[in-house]
Amino acid sequence: MKKIGIVGFRGYSGAELAQLLSRHGGVEVFLMEHREEPTAVKGQTTMPATADAVAAAGLDGIFLATPPEVSMELAPGYLAAGAKLVDLSGAFRLGTVESYQRWYKEEHTQPELLAEAAYVLPELNRQDAVGKRLISNPGCYPTAASLALAPLVDVIDRQAGVVCDAKSGVSGAGRKASLATHFCEVTENFSAYSLLYHRHVAEVLQNTGLREAEFSFAAQLIPVHRGILETIYFRASDLKSAAEIVGMYETRYADEPFVRIYEPGKVPDLRAVTRTNFCDIGVVFDGRTKRGIVVAAIDNLVKGAAGQAIQNMNLILGFPETQGLL
Amino acid sequence: MKKIGIVGFRGYSGAELAQLLSRHGGVEVFLMEHREEPTAVKGQTTMPATADAVAAAGLDGIFLATPPEVSMELAPGYLAAGAKLVDLSGAFRLGTVESYQRWYKEEHTQPELLAEAAYVLPELNRQDAVGKRLISNPGCYPTAASLALAPLVDVIDRQAGVVCDAKSGVSGAGRKASLATHFCEVTENFSAYSLLYHRHVAEVLQNTGLREAEFSFAAQLIPVHRGILETIYFRASDLKSAAEIVGMYETRYADEPFVRIYEPGKVPDLRAVTRTNFCDIGVVFDGRTKRGIVVAAIDNLVKGAAGQAIQNMNLILGFPETQGLL
Amino acid sequence: MKKIGIVGFRGYSGAELAQLLSRHGGVEVFLMEHREEPTAVKGQTTMPATADAVAAAGLDGIFLATPPEVSMELAPGYLAAGAKLVDLSGAFRLGTVESYQRWYKEEHTQPELLAEAAYVLPELNRQDAVGKRLISNPGCYPTAASLALAPLVDVIDRQAGVVCDAKSGVSGAGRKASLATHFCEVTENFSAYSLLYHRHVAEVLQNTGLREAEFSFAAQLIPVHRGILETIYFRASDLKSAAEIVGMYETRYADEPFVRIYEPGKVPDLRAVTRTNFCDIGVVFDGRTKRGIVVAAIDNLVKGAAGQAIQNMNLILGFPETQGLL
Amino acid sequence: MKKIGIVGFRGYSGAELAQLLSRHGGVEVFLMEHREEPTAVKGQTTMPATADAVAAAGLDGIFLATPPEVSMELAPGYLAAGAKLVDLSGAFRLGTVESYQRWYKEEHTQPELLAEAAYVLPELNRQDAVGKRLISNPGCYPTAASLALAPLVDVIDRQAGVVCDAKSGVSGAGRKASLATHFCEVTENFSAYSLLYHRHVAEVLQNTGLREAEFSFAAQLIPVHRGILETIYFRASDLKSAAEIVGMYETRYADEPFVRIYEPGKVPDLRAVTRTNFCDIGVVFDGRTKRGIVVAAIDNLVKGAAGQAIQNMNLILGFPETQGLL
Repeated sequence: MKKIGIVGFRGYSGAELAQLLSRHGGVEVFLMEHREEPTAVKGQTTMPATADAVAAAGLDGIFLATPPEVSMELAPGYLAAGAKLVDLSGAFRLGTVESYQRWYKEEHTQPELLAEAAYVLPELNRQDAVGKRLISNPGCYPTAASLALAPLVDVIDRQAGVVCDAKSGVSGAGRKASLATHFCEVTENFSAYSLLYHRHVAEVLQNTGLREAEFSFAAQLIPVHRGILETIYFRASDLKSAAEIVGMYETRYADEPFVRIYEPGKVPDLRAVTRTNFCDIGVVFDGRTKRGIVVAAIDNLVKGAAGQAIQNMNLILGFPETQGLL
Repeated sequence: MKKIGIVGFRGYSGAELAQLLSRHGGVEVFLMEHREEPTAVKGQTTMPATADAVAAAGLDGIFLATPPEVSMELAPGYLAAGAKLVDLSGAFRLGTVESYQRWYKEEHTQPELLAEAAYVLPELNRQDAVGKRLISNPGCYPTAASLALAPLVDVIDRQAGVVCDAKSGVSGAGRKASLATHFCEVTENFSAYSLLYHRHVAEVLQNTGLREAEFSFAAQLIPVHRGILETIYFRASDLKSAAEIVGMYETRYADEPFVRIYEPGKVPDLRAVTRTNFCDIGVVFDGRTKRGIVVAAIDNLVKGAAGQAIQNMNLILGFPETQGLL
Repeated sequence: MKKIGIVGFRGYSGAELAQLLSRHGGVEVFLMEHREEPTAVKGQTTMPATADAVAAAGLDGIFLATPPEVSMELAPGYLAAGAKLVDLSGAFRLGTVESYQRWYKEEHTQPELLAEAAYVLPELNRQDAVGKRLISNPGCYPTAASLALAPLVDVIDRQAGVVCDAKSGVSGAGRKASLATHFCEVTENFSAYSLLYHRHVAEVLQNTGLREAEFSFAAQLIPVHRGILETIYFRASDLKSAAEIVGMYETRYADEPFVRIYEPGKVPDLRAVTRTNFCDIGVVFDGRTKRGIVVAAIDNLVKGAAGQAIQNMNLILGFPETQGLL
Repeated sequence: MKKIGIVGFRGYSGAELAQLLSRHGGVEVFLMEHREEPTAVKGQTTMPATADAVAAAGLDGIFLATPPEVSMELAPGYLAAGAKLVDLSGAFRLGTVESYQRWYKEEHTQPELLAEAAYVLPELNRQDAVGKRLISNPGCYPTAASLALAPLVDVIDRQAGVVCDAKSGVSGAGRKASLATHFCEVTENFSAYSLLYHRHVAEVLQNTGLREAEFSFAAQLIPVHRGILETIYFRASDLKSAAEIVGMYETRYADEPFVRIYEPGKVPDLRAVTRTNFCDIGVVFDGRTKRGIVVAAIDNLVKGAAGQAIQNMNLILGFPETQGLL
């Protein structure tokens, strides 16, 4: 039985972590109060989020479901106290301090940890987690986009570019109250909130090897609670059919329990993945025009956040990667 | 006072026509029963949808808010009875019988009327309505896409292609009960229902001059009642900024009361146009990568159907084009 | 042309006022900034909400779409500056200072204005507006409940009591961001937020003459933008049928343009009144058990706030009561 | 390992059964085709819903997630083939043929089975399941109302009557496509669809001992997928406080794993029970006026249908009652 803490358990990702871990079977969960006094939550007393408290409790692992600046502030002390960390923020996702500063518009205060951290999207590079004590968990949009593009990026017409039209449920905006997430502003509406310059663009480029001039991205808000669906457009002069492409995906993800490939011409809807850790992928392709579309769907709070973070925690703590997630 | 009939008044577009026309001021409205017996609707007796009844009533104009095959069946008799027609179906939208048969997968039974009909999207070709007795009203998706692309199509990199990611509210699927429109299937969901091969693709190509190999299109369902938002991606090597492009739109649509252009970098959301006849357009452009995005929004039942149909009826019956719509 | 100010125009009721007044035809609207600097809103410069500015502008009337304490703070100066007021807050709704303090849990700082103000629900007591310079506009729930109960209260079994199960769209909670109105907390949910002790109970008792021990009330949140539907249960030993009761309603509201009575056994749904100033009422009654239900529906932002406030402003400024509302 | 069939697995309750049973651990599930040819569903071949097929397969138990007339048609053959049945329809819920005919407006074709069947709401009368081969599963509304009223019915003022204002998500209307469940008719709406005379009234009266003249009921549609919330109003002259009443509930349901009682003054919202087999209950009471409100919430597809049916199947097949449901 490992002891696992969650900082940020009141946010949507943190709450999802707590719920998923309640069915894990191999962990005891500690809810950690970063800014508030310890109190009782669902019959359990929360603990302070200090490094001393981490050491005293003997935590084996901690999830940081916190903003980047809080993750940077807390990570060093927790590591010194002997805990392994999975950070759900953007603090350690980009490869360099410069890149972080360009896309996040803020100082990076932990360049050494940035160098040490492993960014791990398990289906693409789970081996990078080996021996690590700080894992940077991928962002929600990049998880779907990277899984959808990985089998394809070497066979498409790069000069034609790739378009990723991304849509997310409102929980992606976090639990903090704001006019933008007010029910009356969202219901019966649909809006684009970050065109071309979303922070997650850098992460997709890093994961896929696409260059900035080859990739267009829009983030948009659907009036639903949870889920991400990305419609990805490409051209591929050397390919012939959706069946051929689906074959490539099936080969690539043959051993992946969390990636499901649809038969040629079929694509997932949002609900297919809600409350699961699956990434569902479908492909349409027109052999005459050489134009194709990949649709990828995940639950932003599960495969896009808490679920994938548990995959990563399982990897570094020695549990089977799928434990608590099937 | 002109006498105007509506066939298909029980559908969403037909009902919208009836409601908008109640504020028109220049028309008397007759609800026409195609398949049912005349009855009382909101205190008004409906009339039969026969050509004899049209002649007897002396209708000046008729809206066909009917499926293509019904429009083809009814149009000849109505024209013979002296009424002018605006058809909201796809029956007379494509230029040739061959094109209709390819995209609609059905015989075209009225090739002569197809040759006679004028397809009119007023902001692009209102002069084509002059002297016509049969107007084909544009489809919902093509209305937004064509208005968004018209000022741009000659300055973009054609070989890079254009992507139109389109989203529609559920009323776009019509009022007929089906599992696909069941509340429980739609709420908290988002789905793509027609990728690459939607009938409206042909109409966009026809309006813009883009070739099929240069255009990708996906139609998707948002869990809202009404509205269409299209996110359109392009590359334009010779352009410098969103401001420059916005200037092109402002010039093109300077005298158009139903097209509103946003300041550079701002884009409309769905709600901006709900229950209006406006098409709102905004542009984002990155001068370094030469990649841009146009977002266009309309209400599918107004500018995408009933509102635009009234523009067209106004044109052929001699009313000011905006009457009943502002 | 009368000059009319709106304080609180950024809230949902204030914005609804501005929109409705744009079609009024008899008024020029001034948006008044209570806490912020004057700025441009939709091409119009806002004005300061000071009494001096009111006097300088020569405003004839002002809507206070503000919290009670702000209404109490602003009203004396505005009256002194010569403007007539319609207050949409609860500040002047209850008859006595004691009652206000009991139900609103706050001091009443303007007892003299409270004595002077007229609470006017036009369909019940429009004559009370005559000669008044300060009208207190009814609350949203009491408007529907009072119109539904007025024709009934003298014929029901008082000792059996009346139950009013009230449901409101989220705009009733105001535009201020809060976790309670976060889309993710509201969608796919339904919650009771004020059982038995809602402030509006006092107003219903005052309007109907029911005693507290005879009336149960629950306020509940529906996941919709706007609208109130109240399901009201009663017993009436002396009545025989829904038809008889509907007859009583028809008699009572025969000359009321904003009250629509349904045929016996039919009741309104929320959508019947959305974006209108109507109060729709339907009755079901079982002659054997003597149990009946009245369903009343209004749009909380129109008949429940801005629309009714315009009725009241029309009354005191000499416009036809329905101007701008049909 | 018991063999369990489901007739009606394409409906919402049937699909919920299949999903819940996939985690049961003690059963093998057979999907049974009543009107269609056997086919493959999620990789499993469906079987015919004939008695012969039931005998050949050796099914131990069968869930009838079918309309009443289909349940009456199928039950005799299945029983003869040796299977035990849990029927989710209304066919066997009311105690007499006369009562069935009055409330369901149809002939009852199986009076002997009606006499044999046990209506079991486990928390109220699980002992009645002993030795039975046909269990009638309670309706969704009556489940919540009966659990909410059972501890209260003997201490309330009967002559004042009880009001049950019930609201249900759209899945309660079934999966069959209809205009009433069309997304565009439901979204941003709220409607009452069965006032006073709902079939479920008879079941509540039967379970609680209330007389018809003492009970008012309204069924209403919330724009959500799933869930029922009932707001129940009563008067109780002999009671003093919510705490006292909560104590009565806690005593009554002390050993019930699926009933959760809230602290005095707190009530559940819909989401508290979504996708669970819980019935959550909260109480508000005003000691001065002697008026109180009970709020009860269940998931209509789980505790209101499939979940409770599994409780009942567990009872008659010898599994622990909670298996597959916690």
